[in-house]
Amino acid sequence: MNSLKETPDILITGGTLLTMAPPEEIVEDPVIGIRDGKIDFIEKGKIPAGHYGAAREIIDASGCIVMPGLVNVHTHLAMTCFRGLADDLPLMTWLNDHIFPAEARFINRRTVYVGAMLAIAEMILSGTTTFCDGYFFEGEVGRAAIAAGMRGVIAQGFIDFPTPNQPGHSENAAIAERFVERWHDRSPLITPALVCHSPYTCSPDTLRIVKDVARRAGVTFQIHLAETREEVRLIRERYGKKSVQHLHDLDLLDQNTIAAHCIWLDGGELDLLAAGRVKVAHDPESNMKLGAGVAPVPEMLRRGIDVGLGTDGCASNNDLDLFGEMGMAARLQKVFSGDPTALTAKRVVEMATIGGARVLGMADRIGSIAPGKEADIILVDMRKPHLTPLYRPFSHLVYAARGADVVTSIIGGRIVMKERRLLQIELTAVMEEVRRIADRIIEAGFHHNAGRL
Amino acid sequence: MNSLKETPDILITGGTLLTMAPPEEIVEDPVIGIRDGKIDFIEKGKIPAGHYGAAREIIDASGCIVMPGLVNVHTHLAMTCFRGLADDLPLMTWLNDHIFPAEARFINRRTVYVGAMLAIAEMILSGTTTFCDGYFFEGEVGRAAIAAGMRGVIAQGFIDFPTPNQPGHSENAAIAERFVERWHDRSPLITPALVCHSPYTCSPDTLRIVKDVARRAGVTFQIHLAETREEVRLIRERYGKKSVQHLHDLDLLDQNTIAAHCIWLDGGELDLLAAGRVKVAHDPESNMKLGAGVAPVPEMLRRGIDVGLGTDGCASNNDLDLFGEMGMAARLQKVFSGDPTALTAKRVVEMATIGGARVLGMADRIGSIAPGKEADIILVDMRKPHLTPLYRPFSHLVYAARGADVVTSIIGGRIVMKERRLLQIELTAVMEEVRRIADRIIEAGFHHNAGRL
Repeated sequence: MNSLKETPDILITGGTLLTMAPPEEIVEDPVIGIRDGKIDFIEKGKIPAGHYGAAREIIDASGCIVMPGLVNVHTHLAMTCFRGLADDLPLMTWLNDHIFPAEARFINRRTVYVGAMLAIAEMILSGTTTFCDGYFFEGEVGRAAIAAGMRGVIAQGFIDFPTPNQPGHSENAAIAERFVERWHDRSPLITPALVCHSPYTCSPDTLRIVKDVARRAGVTFQIHLAETREEVRLIRERYGKKSVQHLHDLDLLDQNTIAAHCIWLDGGELDLLAAGRVKVAHDPESNMKLGAGVAPVPEMLRRGIDVGLGTDGCASNNDLDLFGEMGMAARLQKVFSGDPTALTAKRVVEMATIGGARVLGMADRIGSIAPGKEADIILVDMRKPHLTPLYRPFSHLVYAARGADVVTSIIGGRIVMKERRLLQIELTAVMEEVRRIADRIIEAGFHHNAGRL
Repeated sequence: MNSLKETPDILITGGTLLTMAPPEEIVEDPVIGIRDGKIDFIEKGKIPAGHYGAAREIIDASGCIVMPGLVNVHTHLAMTCFRGLADDLPLMTWLNDHIFPAEARFINRRTVYVGAMLAIAEMILSGTTTFCDGYFFEGEVGRAAIAAGMRGVIAQGFIDFPTPNQPGHSENAAIAERFVERWHDRSPLITPALVCHSPYTCSPDTLRIVKDVARRAGVTFQIHLAETREEVRLIRERYGKKSVQHLHDLDLLDQNTIAAHCIWLDGGELDLLAAGRVKVAHDPESNMKLGAGVAPVPEMLRRGIDVGLGTDGCASNNDLDLFGEMGMAARLQKVFSGDPTALTAKRVVEMATIGGARVLGMADRIGSIAPGKEADIILVDMRKPHLTPLYRPFSHLVYAARGADVVTSIIGGRIVMKERRLLQIELTAVMEEVRRIADRIIEAGFHHNAGRL
């Protein structure tokens, strides 16, 4: 105990703290002080009332697990507008006949802003405090995040066909540079980045140009990689090599590249990713729902590759709940390998917190609870029937807890949800506006099912 | 509209009704009348207030999906006491070194009663209105269900080693007969049944004797079947044949047999199950978490086999939320086959409702919403960010909704949950007693992990 500390803005007392920072990973009855947006101190045991002076806010975490906010390393937030629009379809039908045409017609600045705001509400309500998004009109995602008090990496998207916010491609370099410059240092919550859709929808030139801008600006470069067998076939047909080799030969692989999915890779390609210190975004629910395949996560972890968890866009998930994603990640590896030890609960919680922070290159700031780090903290209420009894926190977080068990969320020292009430988002109005967007989509005949079945 | 109807006990008005009974599967703005525990009528459109006289209770379902309560066809409720006790372990280590010894020491009448009561609370809170349980001291499960107003099939368990409630086995027939007789017609909520643990833990004699009692009494006979490759190997070693052939040769396969898991079966065995009209309980989360394997559900459905959804016990799940199970069932088949059309959302909702009712032999009474059927009804509130917008109810129920979205539940015309408050269960006291059981288990050193990691 240290009585010389300055008065914290927020005190969290009680509960069980999962720091996700060794050596002291579990602290019972902690007292956590937050000041100026950062974690100021962590102490143990019962502290007398008034000991720290008059904190603006004291949060009682009795019965809760206190842990770092979750990090969603791969999503397309504005796709909330298409949630459940088309399911149970072959991947290429889904993409070419439903998603791409719907995007071409309905994605604009406003739909991206309001779709992202709905997504941010859902993410906060389910324990996520940092997202990594890639889409069109990505500045709107940044504006929504700032308004909501959410932390995010916003990656402007590039693809070699006309998109709602970019009819041509001759200006890729200039657009990328302008985007990064505009968002650099604009808000402590926002980190700009760049994303090329995939090796099969972006030419070698596009990939090289965008990565070059990212490298010079020191921001992450993202790409969907080896998501489907069809992609692997296409790349071999066009370039005579495997997907990872293709990116390697274009000099795209380094520690600031995040590759999403990474399903159809062989051992040699995993070695190339590991050697390049490339980060991986693993999206099990989307991969399952699209029938894409199972990423070799244990092989990645064995090679020391940093792996984070993502939901992908919620047209292919269909939610943004990282608790569901944790349970799915663990169970999928077990059934796929026939080995129930293939991926443990603790490894999965690491992937959703500090692992995700490493993937985004932000592990010095977020992903664990330690003095000096950003105060991105969630409280998970364990006093629920489905979380009773409690033998091991990691087990419950992965195999039984749901996003709806998160009661309070703090991002950068600001309380964004308290007792499940969102404090910065006008939820009713946001939901109503997205419903009106959906009505227009239905009226335009984009809804693939007759009736409402 | 029919103004001659008698005054209903409960009226449900508004929302979107999924009847799960063709031809009219979706009814917008329905008015559902419930009288004497049964569904009395379903009408459409805006009905003037007071039209039906003074119903005791009027439930406004605006913004909700109104649907049949879910049917959990395979569980071991009292295992709530062991939820999260041991995870991420090889199956045989988990079973032989943790679960079986913990059961031998801690399972008694009281732990079964209170463990089942906690499970029933969790099931009601997540939309289940009928369960099918198999365990020891099964009468305690029946008593808990009656006290809670829950509908259940209770199957007394048989296995060829000493169990807490049955040290020897010479009395199997008499015990089975007594159990069925005691619970026959005792409560409209409870249906007795019998369960043999598996072909590898029960001798041919045990299997034949118990099935014989079940057949004479007209109750279901249940068994774990082809859950692991190890089981298939053991049965071949002992009896020189495959698991299903073994049961077939013992004359165990008929329409009142429910086989749980059914993973490691070939086409010939599936044909045998179909020919015998055997019912299947599919438990994807448990199968995944234990690394057991993937049941060939599409092949079963193609053969016309009735398949229901179960959670299994929550030591291997680790919850009892059938919404999670629905999402898992659909996604697992898609990723396993590489075909996103392998199992559609609608088929999965059928499995969790009318399909489950068929598995239990209760499709004339439960599983759909139609006049004359038991009033087992749930309301799912769709006015949530993760359920917005709403294009198709079936999609959201399977891919985005969670148990926590269920707001109201009616079983046999009795409201058991209203606005998420349980009306028949003293939840705080139940959770506290299960916590004390867990404390004793930890003190006895049964907790496999050092510390609380």
